[in-house]
Amino acid sequence: MSKPFMFEKPIGMRDTLPELFETKQRIANDINEEVSRWGYRAIQTPTLEYYETVGEASAILDQQLFKLLDQDGNTLVLRPDMTAPIARLAASSLKNEAYPLRLSYHTNLYRSQQREGGKPAEFEQIGVELVGDGTSSADAEVIALMISSLRKAGVENFQVAIGHIGYVNALLLEVVGNEERANVLRRYLYEKNYVGYRQHVKSLPLSSIDKSRLLDLLKLRGGSEKIQAASELVQSEAGEKALQDLSKLWEALECYGVTEFLKIDLNLVMHMSYYTGVVFEGYGSRLGVPLGSGGRYDELLANFDRPAQATGFGIRLDLLVEAIGTKKELTPQTCIIFSNERRKEAIDLATQKREQGDAVILQDLAGIKDVDVLSEQFAEVIYCIGKAKNGGANDE
Amino acid sequence: MSKPFMFEKPIGMRDTLPELFETKQRIANDINEEVSRWGYRAIQTPTLEYYETVGEASAILDQQLFKLLDQDGNTLVLRPDMTAPIARLAASSLKNEAYPLRLSYHTNLYRSQQREGGKPAEFEQIGVELVGDGTSSADAEVIALMISSLRKAGVENFQVAIGHIGYVNALLLEVVGNEERANVLRRYLYEKNYVGYRQHVKSLPLSSIDKSRLLDLLKLRGGSEKIQAASELVQSEAGEKALQDLSKLWEALECYGVTEFLKIDLNLVMHMSYYTGVVFEGYGSRLGVPLGSGGRYDELLANFDRPAQATGFGIRLDLLVEAIGTKKELTPQTCIIFSNERRKEAIDLATQKREQGDAVILQDLAGIKDVDVLSEQFAEVIYCIGKAKNGGANDE
Repeated sequence: MSKPFMFEKPIGMRDTLPELFETKQRIANDINEEVSRWGYRAIQTPTLEYYETVGEASAILDQQLFKLLDQDGNTLVLRPDMTAPIARLAASSLKNEAYPLRLSYHTNLYRSQQREGGKPAEFEQIGVELVGDGTSSADAEVIALMISSLRKAGVENFQVAIGHIGYVNALLLEVVGNEERANVLRRYLYEKNYVGYRQHVKSLPLSSIDKSRLLDLLKLRGGSEKIQAASELVQSEAGEKALQDLSKLWEALECYGVTEFLKIDLNLVMHMSYYTGVVFEGYGSRLGVPLGSGGRYDELLANFDRPAQATGFGIRLDLLVEAIGTKKELTPQTCIIFSNERRKEAIDLATQKREQGDAVILQDLAGIKDVDVLSEQFAEVIYCIGKAKNGGANDE
Repeated sequence: MSKPFMFEKPIGMRDTLPELFETKQRIANDINEEVSRWGYRAIQTPTLEYYETVGEASAILDQQLFKLLDQDGNTLVLRPDMTAPIARLAASSLKNEAYPLRLSYHTNLYRSQQREGGKPAEFEQIGVELVGDGTSSADAEVIALMISSLRKAGVENFQVAIGHIGYVNALLLEVVGNEERANVLRRYLYEKNYVGYRQHVKSLPLSSIDKSRLLDLLKLRGGSEKIQAASELVQSEAGEKALQDLSKLWEALECYGVTEFLKIDLNLVMHMSYYTGVVFEGYGSRLGVPLGSGGRYDELLANFDRPAQATGFGIRLDLLVEAIGTKKELTPQTCIIFSNERRKEAIDLATQKREQGDAVILQDLAGIKDVDVLSEQFAEVIYCIGKAKNGGANDE
């Protein structure tokens, strides 16, 4: 029974071998450095949280949560996202810190997979949360920082789609009249199932004008001119307010000089239900799934008794590595192969080279099965074997 | 029911706030760099493993494992140590790599706590495994690397106690005659309950000579001369072989010039049952628990169908931070407070300073509740507010 499992890992669980690790680490360091330069302070929260607190606030589907019971019968979850834990932190340990609060994290997240389908159940994410600032400047900052992070990491082609959940909500509600019906349409948009959306719209008992409004929503993807076009579809205050947010945001992003990376996408609906305003997703050229995403969540903090407006993003490190590609070559190493008589000489040489910053392996000849096979891996092999040539004081 | 939990975390789970994080990160970087210079390649393994594979091989008490069930009814565990996962890796994904294999990791480990008693249920560990090398040079290398890592991290006073589980096992078996009785004594040693050990020895139906041998074991702590003293207590080949290992190891460690940090401690019994030879623990001056520990485990790899001799160590980052102490000051930040008219000027200034390596916060005045309170946190505050003085082209 136990034998067949010996090398197996649970569904969606992965090992990271040295080549992949080096690439991922390099990328993570570049992003973490950039995030720190923008004034974000790094924190960590536990892998396990109570289901009743962070688990429920996280907006991840229940079936995607890894759950376990503690000895008192409480349900624990493996952290499925970091926004809810940071909200908890802002409202507890950091409750005496003045807003706005800029926090960052680099951590693993966990989402259970129902079957082995190439989707990881554990992945690394780097992200920021800007808590206690409701201005468009705050939205612009996190978007500009995500763009800057992707550039520092070395992603060559990417685009950030910007939408506004308040606009989508307002338009759908105006046209279909209640949240239940709006939800059906929102789900199509979230799934990016535009064919299904169109068919569903056609089946609705609405006037042809209203149907057109819903169908015209799908055209609201492009440059900043789409903000103007969007305003023709809504009448409600909430809808207009959302478009004003977007205009101000665009203006701020122009100051950052990043509009070449942007497009407006008013179809954007995210899976996180806590978003309340501007939302965005960054796509690389090689992948269909977003490398990073984020948005404004002005109501989540109230769950933790410290209401505050907030915005943030998360970048999926695993997808970023896929987009950039793993370099084939590992950092070169030198190997010093020694026999006992010259051990001290070999150690001294290794110490000296390591102090210069080289990566040096010290290998006792007696510990090697096949010298040729081992040597192949190294950029340089130095032998300190047999009697020392100079019979010097270094030798034992 | 959910309210009282709102800010609570599961037993033994911690948040890491910015001050602690910065210190921990600095220490981790120093150690990881050193480990990499000694030629160890970093890898990662999943947080969740099958209980039947890595969980059972890990030698952590069952009650300390965090367990959950997957949808197929398999028991999963949160990784309680890294030696077993690396053994799995060496025998599967890395099975075509030539031995000796030098691997390192920096990861979280999980050990369930029965009650809140200050012990973390999740902690970071940095460690190495040197797989496929049975020489004393390999034992010396990992001990010397642990010492070098602790020094790079900035621990001022520490000592590494070196023992040999083969010696303890041989002596106990020679004297008490069977494993069951030996186990009772080993447990006292593992718990460092020397009073209990003495009392138990006195209660045993043994000759006074044999009792003396068991009591004399407790005196085998000190300099390398204790290796000689130890040889007077054993007669078996296994006991002598263990002492030869220790002599060779000491000789190799003299070449590294690290004997000032060492003491021999033949009472050392570790909680990990997979150790087979040399074992060691590093203690700081301020703490009773080891900052790092390790040893030789020549039989574990056979569980994974690729038998190999191996040795390694793990350093507890949380305990190391306690030993070194958190610095009180966070990295200084500059804050640029701007109003909309001068946003672009403020962004350009921030970009320039960030490129120089400064940590700069850009803050819209409209997003601040209390400028005085916010400003207090920063080393420098620059205002870009109101009409630009020069009415320059930079302004919107």
